[in-house]
Amino acid sequence: MPANMMPRSALALALLLSAVLSGLGAASAQATGILSKPAQQVKENRISAKNAVLLLLDHQTGLFQLVRDSSVTDFKTNVLALAATAKLYGVPTILTTSLEGGPNGPILPEIRAIFPNATLIPRPGEINAWDNTDFVKAATGRKKLLIAGIVTDVCVLFPTLSALAEGYEVYIVTDASGTFSAPVRDAALARATGAGAVLINWFAVACELQRDWRLGPNSGLGLAKLLSVYLPEYGNLISSHSAAVAVGKTSG
Amino acid sequence: MPANMMPRSALALALLLSAVLSGLGAASAQATGILSKPAQQVKENRISAKNAVLLLLDHQTGLFQLVRDSSVTDFKTNVLALAATAKLYGVPTILTTSLEGGPNGPILPEIRAIFPNATLIPRPGEINAWDNTDFVKAATGRKKLLIAGIVTDVCVLFPTLSALAEGYEVYIVTDASGTFSAPVRDAALARATGAGAVLINWFAVACELQRDWRLGPNSGLGLAKLLSVYLPEYGNLISSHSAAVAVGKTSG
Amino acid sequence: MPANMMPRSALALALLLSAVLSGLGAASAQATGILSKPAQQVKENRISAKNAVLLLLDHQTGLFQLVRDSSVTDFKTNVLALAATAKLYGVPTILTTSLEGGPNGPILPEIRAIFPNATLIPRPGEINAWDNTDFVKAATGRKKLLIAGIVTDVCVLFPTLSALAEGYEVYIVTDASGTFSAPVRDAALARATGAGAVLINWFAVACELQRDWRLGPNSGLGLAKLLSVYLPEYGNLISSHSAAVAVGKTSG
Amino acid sequence: MPANMMPRSALALALLLSAVLSGLGAASAQATGILSKPAQQVKENRISAKNAVLLLLDHQTGLFQLVRDSSVTDFKTNVLALAATAKLYGVPTILTTSLEGGPNGPILPEIRAIFPNATLIPRPGEINAWDNTDFVKAATGRKKLLIAGIVTDVCVLFPTLSALAEGYEVYIVTDASGTFSAPVRDAALARATGAGAVLINWFAVACELQRDWRLGPNSGLGLAKLLSVYLPEYGNLISSHSAAVAVGKTSG
Amino acid sequence: MPANMMPRSALALALLLSAVLSGLGAASAQATGILSKPAQQVKENRISAKNAVLLLLDHQTGLFQLVRDSSVTDFKTNVLALAATAKLYGVPTILTTSLEGGPNGPILPEIRAIFPNATLIPRPGEINAWDNTDFVKAATGRKKLLIAGIVTDVCVLFPTLSALAEGYEVYIVTDASGTFSAPVRDAALARATGAGAVLINWFAVACELQRDWRLGPNSGLGLAKLLSVYLPEYGNLISSHSAAVAVGKTSG
Amino acid sequence: MPANMMPRSALALALLLSAVLSGLGAASAQATGILSKPAQQVKENRISAKNAVLLLLDHQTGLFQLVRDSSVTDFKTNVLALAATAKLYGVPTILTTSLEGGPNGPILPEIRAIFPNATLIPRPGEINAWDNTDFVKAATGRKKLLIAGIVTDVCVLFPTLSALAEGYEVYIVTDASGTFSAPVRDAALARATGAGAVLINWFAVACELQRDWRLGPNSGLGLAKLLSVYLPEYGNLISSHSAAVAVGKTSG
Amino acid sequence: MPANMMPRSALALALLLSAVLSGLGAASAQATGILSKPAQQVKENRISAKNAVLLLLDHQTGLFQLVRDSSVTDFKTNVLALAATAKLYGVPTILTTSLEGGPNGPILPEIRAIFPNATLIPRPGEINAWDNTDFVKAATGRKKLLIAGIVTDVCVLFPTLSALAEGYEVYIVTDASGTFSAPVRDAALARATGAGAVLINWFAVACELQRDWRLGPNSGLGLAKLLSVYLPEYGNLISSHSAAVAVGKTSG
Amino acid sequence: MPANMMPRSALALALLLSAVLSGLGAASAQATGILSKPAQQVKENRISAKNAVLLLLDHQTGLFQLVRDSSVTDFKTNVLALAATAKLYGVPTILTTSLEGGPNGPILPEIRAIFPNATLIPRPGEINAWDNTDFVKAATGRKKLLIAGIVTDVCVLFPTLSALAEGYEVYIVTDASGTFSAPVRDAALARATGAGAVLINWFAVACELQRDWRLGPNSGLGLAKLLSVYLPEYGNLISSHSAAVAVGKTSG
Repeated sequence: MPANMMPRSALALALLLSAVLSGLGAASAQATGILSKPAQQVKENRISAKNAVLLLLDHQTGLFQLVRDSSVTDFKTNVLALAATAKLYGVPTILTTSLEGGPNGPILPEIRAIFPNATLIPRPGEINAWDNTDFVKAATGRKKLLIAGIVTDVCVLFPTLSALAEGYEVYIVTDASGTFSAPVRDAALARATGAGAVLINWFAVACELQRDWRLGPNSGLGLAKLLSVYLPEYGNLISSHSAAVAVGKTSG
Repeated sequence: MPANMMPRSALALALLLSAVLSGLGAASAQATGILSKPAQQVKENRISAKNAVLLLLDHQTGLFQLVRDSSVTDFKTNVLALAATAKLYGVPTILTTSLEGGPNGPILPEIRAIFPNATLIPRPGEINAWDNTDFVKAATGRKKLLIAGIVTDVCVLFPTLSALAEGYEVYIVTDASGTFSAPVRDAALARATGAGAVLINWFAVACELQRDWRLGPNSGLGLAKLLSVYLPEYGNLISSHSAAVAVGKTSG
Repeated sequence: MPANMMPRSALALALLLSAVLSGLGAASAQATGILSKPAQQVKENRISAKNAVLLLLDHQTGLFQLVRDSSVTDFKTNVLALAATAKLYGVPTILTTSLEGGPNGPILPEIRAIFPNATLIPRPGEINAWDNTDFVKAATGRKKLLIAGIVTDVCVLFPTLSALAEGYEVYIVTDASGTFSAPVRDAALARATGAGAVLINWFAVACELQRDWRLGPNSGLGLAKLLSVYLPEYGNLISSHSAAVAVGKTSG
Repeated sequence: MPANMMPRSALALALLLSAVLSGLGAASAQATGILSKPAQQVKENRISAKNAVLLLLDHQTGLFQLVRDSSVTDFKTNVLALAATAKLYGVPTILTTSLEGGPNGPILPEIRAIFPNATLIPRPGEINAWDNTDFVKAATGRKKLLIAGIVTDVCVLFPTLSALAEGYEVYIVTDASGTFSAPVRDAALARATGAGAVLINWFAVACELQRDWRLGPNSGLGLAKLLSVYLPEYGNLISSHSAAVAVGKTSG
Repeated sequence: MPANMMPRSALALALLLSAVLSGLGAASAQATGILSKPAQQVKENRISAKNAVLLLLDHQTGLFQLVRDSSVTDFKTNVLALAATAKLYGVPTILTTSLEGGPNGPILPEIRAIFPNATLIPRPGEINAWDNTDFVKAATGRKKLLIAGIVTDVCVLFPTLSALAEGYEVYIVTDASGTFSAPVRDAALARATGAGAVLINWFAVACELQRDWRLGPNSGLGLAKLLSVYLPEYGNLISSHSAAVAVGKTSG
Repeated sequence: MPANMMPRSALALALLLSAVLSGLGAASAQATGILSKPAQQVKENRISAKNAVLLLLDHQTGLFQLVRDSSVTDFKTNVLALAATAKLYGVPTILTTSLEGGPNGPILPEIRAIFPNATLIPRPGEINAWDNTDFVKAATGRKKLLIAGIVTDVCVLFPTLSALAEGYEVYIVTDASGTFSAPVRDAALARATGAGAVLINWFAVACELQRDWRLGPNSGLGLAKLLSVYLPEYGNLISSHSAAVAVGKTSG
Repeated sequence: MPANMMPRSALALALLLSAVLSGLGAASAQATGILSKPAQQVKENRISAKNAVLLLLDHQTGLFQLVRDSSVTDFKTNVLALAATAKLYGVPTILTTSLEGGPNGPILPEIRAIFPNATLIPRPGEINAWDNTDFVKAATGRKKLLIAGIVTDVCVLFPTLSALAEGYEVYIVTDASGTFSAPVRDAALARATGAGAVLINWFAVACELQRDWRLGPNSGLGLAKLLSVYLPEYGNLISSHSAAVAVGKTSG
Repeated sequence: MPANMMPRSALALALLLSAVLSGLGAASAQATGILSKPAQQVKENRISAKNAVLLLLDHQTGLFQLVRDSSVTDFKTNVLALAATAKLYGVPTILTTSLEGGPNGPILPEIRAIFPNATLIPRPGEINAWDNTDFVKAATGRKKLLIAGIVTDVCVLFPTLSALAEGYEVYIVTDASGTFSAPVRDAALARATGAGAVLINWFAVACELQRDWRLGPNSGLGLAKLLSVYLPEYGNLISSHSAAVAVGKTSG
């Protein structure tokens, strides 16, 4: 879905219409008061840009070829969606790779393009990123670690176990992680949750960060735009809605 | 399965016959005494119309298009079956929607038709219904929360986690909840059960409420009728049975 | 999807709006002239209410239990959708059953309700309906036979082969026919097409009969209403569209 | 489903009831006249005990382990159902095996038990049974060859091609034939149908031989009994029906 | 797999050979001493004929039609295999049914045939068998309950929860239990294991009862015979093995 | 895969390297002579920009929601890949929509963006685009019609049958067409091929147009670039290859 | 399955035993006379080492990553099995690659190892191998072309269409060919068979070449050895058989 | 993938190149210092050749035929990969079999070939290997037990439960264990994890043993070579990478 081929004016119109008719434009002004449940928030300990860091592990063009527990296009779209989510909400993101000069290949160029200035730790040999001091130093400023990578059963699981052992909270973003087969994935996730990890998907990460459609980047339009790029079925809802609203205006 | 197209007289006959020959008619009179195990009942803490509330979250016509972890017709039938179950047994039901005027679309008209007078909380922006004070007030009169909605990993999961954190018992009705894919559903349900939620399906909700075929609405005929509408394989059993009984009577 | 539970006024509004904004209301008046390609029509020999008959074979409540090549609810919905399509467009329909008093069970009551006055040939023993003189007499007034039934490999296939041998054109409505498994279905359809049968699904039957949204029963609203009942994903499109148009009118 | 463990008296009652109420008992007396369409019959050239022979190829206990395009139990049941069908209707049956003393193993004992006196051609080396003169001699008394075996792509396909080349009509009984995977099966069947073979399943074979429930072995009871053993879902219909008829008689 | 059609002599030979060459015949005499690890046995608390009871819930011919999470033939074979296992090892077995006279249908005749004298509790209305005093009395002489039934999410799950609440150990025999779909099954089993139930399959039940091939009914031949009837792939191993041994003897 | 987020310089480098080392740069100069088999070319009648037209039918944002025979993201990517292919090779493309103002929704904005100046025929009601004179006029300048659309069984199939009846060659681009389910798709494609249509996928269209990597837009780099955007697994091959070549250069 | 890790002596023993007891050793001497049906052989026109050539197209290590219509290990094993089959029977084999120096990668080393001296045509740019004069010259000495490659819809299909157009007989070895998905494969094979190609799998190729277990390389032991390496389920049959024969000899 | 057919020199070159360009050669010299986190290592308690033993249970050629929860070739490759992994890193390995002389068959010859001198305990009858004193003695020198076998629900599960009960840590290598179906596997693994077992796959075992690409057998080349044999998709990455590096060197 090459976003650069989208008719920008049409898309902008669609989003604007959606925002207006759902009352977001008017509502966002007063939205500052809506989250007045600090006690609950603390208790629930939700993911936010202030308490979490995203760790993208070994999304390399060679390793990508090993992923067989989902369609290639679906998987790549999920990975980029997670990256774009982190960027949208300002969640700090650390990249790491394993032996980029070898068969594992370079990091997916589209990921690097989303985070041109992010810290990238090229690991000279450690399979478990947590064995690399530089990575641990970069990754551990916050308590909540959002982890995704290739392959789920090694590159994701090993640092998950290490981080949990040191007291961090680990959220594995399952649909932005991939491996050889569904049974291998399920076994790896069973080991991870058994050790205390939480499973999540990129859409839930985005919604947990957004919290309220009237808040967030650009008062909700940021998320709407991100969904229209990475979640085609939702993008279609927006386009259809905008067109129908326009019909209504004309005939109104 | 448009019930209004059913031959009412034939259906009534079928149900009547089924009831008679399975002894329900005769048995229901004495049925008042059968559940004399109050201690056990309390200990097991079963779902009943007195201790539970049904929360239907964001079953909106736009969001419906996102559901890909079951067939569309199966999913819609399950959702309506759950709604009809709550209505049959008198379980109070709260509806809520997210940005109805926008791409998410209006609530499924058939749901609204089943509960024309139920409380419906249109949320102006909160993704987690539990962040909306009105919803929480409406939803929390009872200890047991039956929750279903779209999508499982956000609209169902988020209030589940919030309610569990506040000490409520949460039953996620899995087959009346839908999302993008089976792996996403599984990951979300793993997080929910890890936090203490119980998984259930609509048929089990109905049976837990009915408890005994000789009790309940219309002494069991209420459930039989509901099943014949929403569970075609069971409806076929009833029709075949009634026809065979009639054959027996004629040849008897 | 119990249609009788639908909020009729809401649905009517939705349909009306859809019709108006897509220009059907205005267009239907002039629509009489649009199909001025009689030569092509004859050459293509499309299905119409004048040249076709629908044969529904052995959709009985016992035999229904044998169908395992699709979900039960999906299959029943498809069968009723095909029946409703024939009724909407006035395609004559013949029903037949095999040993209704025995384990095969009675005809699905909902089918009989759609066609309370249709000819129903109860076959006393013939497995191939074409072996029953009464059925053949009833079925053969037209050249095009639309056939659906249970099970695909016998009740559908046998009369298909017989009718093709006598020079009729046979369209097997595949998704309103069911059998034990997908491989059995595929083998049966291979034998049918090898003998000259054409495969079709109920939605294509409806569209081939409708030809143009500005024509047909109620100038297109008949089909829209049918789809909103039997094709939930399309019904959702209509509901979402109507709601969005209403938003546009209000804000216009 | 060990039939020998069935309560014989209950089964007999069930079948008897089914027969009586479906009118088979009364009808069978007059049934001799019902197939008075000789011309059509010839034209359609249906399978009968007079024009067909069943060839069971290499259903050996070693080769069985290679079959992965269906469940083991389903496949074995289908094979035995086909064998029992041939026996019920008196279709002559020829058995052949490939290198029984080697890894391919002996013929499935249950098949041999159904046909203790049938001709069995042990092939000393020929992969294509048609290369064995004895087999061809035994197999070719009739024009219609019903063929099933292991594996579909070799033991079934090769003699199919040979027989078609010599002018025989070949029906491959697909669900009593098995091989390594569904794609391999599909490719083999494509080659077979491209050469003129017809695909069929065992249930269709049985129904084509039965033609009318009032005819055949034991006036239809033979088929009913066979189905109750090899087609559990149909056996359940018979049991349920009989029980319901009995209820009706009692209450009638 | 109609066992009564098996060539008994051939099968007997096969089993005898297998036993002889695997040394069972010679070994069984000394086998009495092999389980000299009583401490471990107690600690592990394995299933035995002395501490367990099998509860078969609602395996009725009508309810069978609802099972869609496995093939019909596979499921029926599993149910009968479990029943035959209990009989082989002398595990006491309790049967119960729900409204046998109605659409649920009679108990599967083959089950009744295996246990002609077992206690059968026909429940007049209670959905949860544990609500029926007679059933609880019959079912609770032992600490370990092996439970299987239709449907998994109600008839199996409800008494499981009740029994666990009263301190019993519950083993759900998953492959002899069935329900509407795999996701419904998975949700039900998640609730069950969350409450303390253990999941098991019939083959593991048999092996846990057998413990050692040199012990048990007929010194291991009982299990071998059972497997050859209900597990075709293992039966084929036995037949192939016996034939090969015979070849060796001849050529030796 | 938002191409606009790709690191352009990195991608360019990758492509350049690939081209150089596979000898395309050097070879393209002499490539003018390689297709000197005009006779064969005519005989084979391959697709080219001079003899074919692409017809994109009803790829509208509402109808997209009906597609369930592939993942949403995969399908959208395939549709855009086909559109980009036509643009790359200069195959004239005609767009058409059905009732854009209604529930079917507007044309997918990304398609319109690729063809901002292409002819778009909005059909006021005709379901079969071939019934619209303007469309037929626009579509029929060439003999070969490449057709894709939503849904396969109606919007693609109907004009396919009409065009074949008038003597055109129709290629259905199957993976850029979508519908309700795989069985419905298969039945529709069987009808189409039975009438003479050819099945093809977008990648084969691209390769048939490219013919030789040394020819075509930008001497092969055009196709390489297109694949790197729409076929992630191939894009990864290019990235990995370029990185490895660079390693070799450095260490060489 | 690294054959070099096999216990050679054990395997040799197994094969020898199998051969002896199936009578191959004795039979092979007289086997020269068994195929005395020359007329039939010609008519059937079977594949032989004298009339066929194997064309392996673009089995390159980069392109391998694109194959998603089967498991990677299964596919690679099938490809090598086909290669080993050709080598065993002496079917001439031509290799070709597309842009080996680029992202498509080198030919699979294991293939090259099987055919160290075979003609390998590196195509400098032609996508359709038939456009390369050298390849056509090498490939066309015989009438029957066995074709396999990556991807099925292009590298296999294009030369198939070209060769068929020039009058060759083309057999596509489907399980040694791979592509993006099952639907893409099916569409490509439909186009191929529509043009006259025959579908086959590697096991059928081997069996068609072997014809009789008493003939062929090493009087049948060549094929047995090949199967034990590339078809693990058959290899297991051989090992089990040999062990059981040995048991028989000892106890005989 | 018969490794012995690989072009050794080509493979060696590929591996060497990969090693060189990823800096392994240079890095391995300094690698001794990298794992200076002994405290963490102990706390995490990773698998190593010093604290673990591999138990391979009943991978016998007869039992192999029972495995249906994965493809045969995939499963066998996984089993051998696990064996080769243990050998590469020097993890002590114990083999055991159940009734080798009977239908279960001999141990897979390829496994025995990898461990020609390993302890093999032939169990004369005990189903649970833990009931065999010799096996327990051989298996229990270390705290961590890596267990794989056939079938998962018995031969793997039973000793797992026994070992856990005695305080051992059990890792079930899921993809080197097999059984009748996926649901049976899932139920067995649920029971195992409920009792404290950890799930793992062979690739994760290898990576946990390797820890760092610069360490281990042959400074990382050992693992690379193992992967190129047993993980074809990774082997292809290595081959492609080496070829591309060579291209770069030439053109650099």
